[in-house]
Amino acid sequence: MPLSDSIELREVGLRDGLQLVKQFPSTAQKQRWIVAAHAAGVRYFEVGSFLPAKTFPQFADVSELLATVAGLEGARSTVLALNERGLNDAFASQADEVALVVSATEEHSQRNARRSRVDAVELVRRARALRDGTATDKRLVAAISMAFGCSIAGQVDPAEVVRLTGECFDAGADMVSLADTVGYAGPSQIVALVRAVQPVAAGRPLGIHLHDTRGLGLANASAALDEGVCAVDAATAGLGGCPFAPAASGNIVFEDLVFLCQTKGIATGIDIPALTAARAILAEAMPDEPLTGALARAGLPLGHVQA
Amino acid sequence: MPLSDSIELREVGLRDGLQLVKQFPSTAQKQRWIVAAHAAGVRYFEVGSFLPAKTFPQFADVSELLATVAGLEGARSTVLALNERGLNDAFASQADEVALVVSATEEHSQRNARRSRVDAVELVRRARALRDGTATDKRLVAAISMAFGCSIAGQVDPAEVVRLTGECFDAGADMVSLADTVGYAGPSQIVALVRAVQPVAAGRPLGIHLHDTRGLGLANASAALDEGVCAVDAATAGLGGCPFAPAASGNIVFEDLVFLCQTKGIATGIDIPALTAARAILAEAMPDEPLTGALARAGLPLGHVQA
Repeated sequence: MPLSDSIELREVGLRDGLQLVKQFPSTAQKQRWIVAAHAAGVRYFEVGSFLPAKTFPQFADVSELLATVAGLEGARSTVLALNERGLNDAFASQADEVALVVSATEEHSQRNARRSRVDAVELVRRARALRDGTATDKRLVAAISMAFGCSIAGQVDPAEVVRLTGECFDAGADMVSLADTVGYAGPSQIVALVRAVQPVAAGRPLGIHLHDTRGLGLANASAALDEGVCAVDAATAGLGGCPFAPAASGNIVFEDLVFLCQTKGIATGIDIPALTAARAILAEAMPDEPLTGALARAGLPLGHVQA
Repeated sequence: MPLSDSIELREVGLRDGLQLVKQFPSTAQKQRWIVAAHAAGVRYFEVGSFLPAKTFPQFADVSELLATVAGLEGARSTVLALNERGLNDAFASQADEVALVVSATEEHSQRNARRSRVDAVELVRRARALRDGTATDKRLVAAISMAFGCSIAGQVDPAEVVRLTGECFDAGADMVSLADTVGYAGPSQIVALVRAVQPVAAGRPLGIHLHDTRGLGLANASAALDEGVCAVDAATAGLGGCPFAPAASGNIVFEDLVFLCQTKGIATGIDIPALTAARAILAEAMPDEPLTGALARAGLPLGHVQA
């Protein structure tokens, strides 16, 4: 079974990877990146967010990128919406999917989004009403950020994440993604939380969003895949490190995630050497940004057959 | 249960981490490293190999390091023996444990050790005879290198590794360690091979030796721990990268392995901040050697309680 029918490997580098950078690719460079990744077999692209271009110039070209993805066979696009206005823009756009964020902790919700978790879930409900009202087929994804621990509140009660997951599904989300936003989890926490939310998911798809902050990103992805998540976020070259900690790892490395899948016998339809070659576009566009990743350095094992 | 009674986290940086380097710490620096790691809670140290000092000057001080470890409470030392002469030296030394290597493939055995696998197993038998004859209590470990794939022969038949594991135990090894020498494995291969060798191990301890060459080192460690291995090798700061590929990852990072164990609720007795602080000794001793590792960058999660 091809990946597109089973596990979605989602390239979030264009959004989460560029969220905090000061230097970012031009629209043409982003388009080259998307086209190259698509040619390597990538099908899911989170391309940006509708935000004021003055504050977030890296996302000013989101509509052009949505058009680029729309022109590629089998490719699907996601935009992140952070408020009512972004939601309206997203629904008026070419995006195939709209993602919203609900913080696992009230502290992070207030500090990061300046709203309560109740209001965040309300935005999911509003999105669903917009979707139903406009008869669009856009998919709605709710991400629970800080689901495995919070850099403001510390430890997070898994019961709270289960409750919020249920609320997001009840509010109309088609998929809920559990985000280890700051890289606190180990595989045991992944297994425990995915199992804990499965009853409220009741067969509806669960995704996972992982950062490699403490080196366990791929161990966590492995655990999540074994537990049956349908979607895994990652970024080419591990983009998305914190600008205040230059050597800190960002999102899990997309190429390395593909290799993990291949070792598991999960068909990805993605060619690793073709994908790592696309890193040259990033290196040219962001010469000061650290590009991480093991497959780009080491190459495929001798005798390895890509699934 | 403290780690020393359950899972051995084995510092191999002094041996495998320095195997290929041109620049290495002085004896005094190595001793400071050992003492600092011991103070942080590390108890297992592979300190070197008895080899000609002209070819391998980094191991010329192995006897002094064995004396250092012998003076530290609860600490145990390992030396690698590569031939009959090394074996005699090892048995005459203060080492608590002698390690030998058997290649999983005939090609690698001939190329790397200039001997057959049959001869390598014979050396294990010879070691056991020496142990029994001298009434020493030195433990014997046989490592199966290239157990998950070979950089010369490519794919490795797991049945061959099962066979060699049985032969090593039959020859007298107290523990057999499966080595992913070139970082070819994914967690599924770890699970499959550990399960395949368990019948021939018949309850005798199994270890695992992992390289992070393709980013899956900690994912593989997690899988191995879940499958019940008793010992995991790692190196502070991930020492052991290939000198011909400067950015290539070496052994799995010891500090990050400790964090993995802590997230699993495995008591390690090791303090991560104390251990990462010891990296300063390596940075001073080998300023040109890349030191990797996530915990050293990111620190412990807020609210994390070390097991």
